[in-house]
Amino acid sequence: MSPKSDDSPAAPRLRLRILFGEDAMLGPGKAELLERVRETGSIAAAGRAMRMSYKRAWMLVEEMNAAFSAPLVDSARGGAGGGGAQLTAIGEEVLRLYRAVENAAAASARDEIAALQALLKP
Amino acid sequence: MSPKSDDSPAAPRLRLRILFGEDAMLGPGKAELLERVRETGSIAAAGRAMRMSYKRAWMLVEEMNAAFSAPLVDSARGGAGGGGAQLTAIGEEVLRLYRAVENAAAASARDEIAALQALLKP
Repeated sequence: MSPKSDDSPAAPRLRLRILFGEDAMLGPGKAELLERVRETGSIAAAGRAMRMSYKRAWMLVEEMNAAFSAPLVDSARGGAGGGGAQLTAIGEEVLRLYRAVENAAAASARDEIAALQALLKP
Repeated sequence: MSPKSDDSPAAPRLRLRILFGEDAMLGPGKAELLERVRETGSIAAAGRAMRMSYKRAWMLVEEMNAAFSAPLVDSARGGAGGGGAQLTAIGEEVLRLYRAVENAAAASARDEIAALQALLKP
């Protein structure tokens, strides 16, 4: 969420998915889910913050946990309090690397993105 | 479609969408559609090559034509031969810039992507 000024169009944003082979994929939704788990300490609360069903939030966490060599999210399922969840060390590292990919991509392609924006209808 | 060697996993690939403000968006599907129009000289044939309905291919072309300051695809609709279509100069430039964004992003984030891949389950 970049702030917008009142007199210029919103800056272009890059949304980026990394496809590993046929199955594993890391994109903005999973990255945000990891961040929200870190913030909220709960997979259910992280999903709610993203208007995502509990089931879908769990499915995405399970996908990530299965794809990497160790789980990215450590969790205790269910219970009255909804269990708790936190990022593991590898979860923190994966999130950091994904954000670094985003930043490197946006910085390196800045001129081309500006050139595309200049071609848009005013 | 990158070739795969027999003894190493497929190289990770980046899929990248550029969001301009609230509405306009340029991603891999539209870029491929532009390329296929150039190859086939026809929006219908370009759509077929991507297993996309005629209607959807036209809709995407119309979205792009409306978003940029001049049409990216010049076309004669319909008729027995299905009309003809080609990229305009601005269409060629938008496609070139999108591919340049992809290349710059992939090159600049190579180390981080390799680090992510190294964390995957073998």
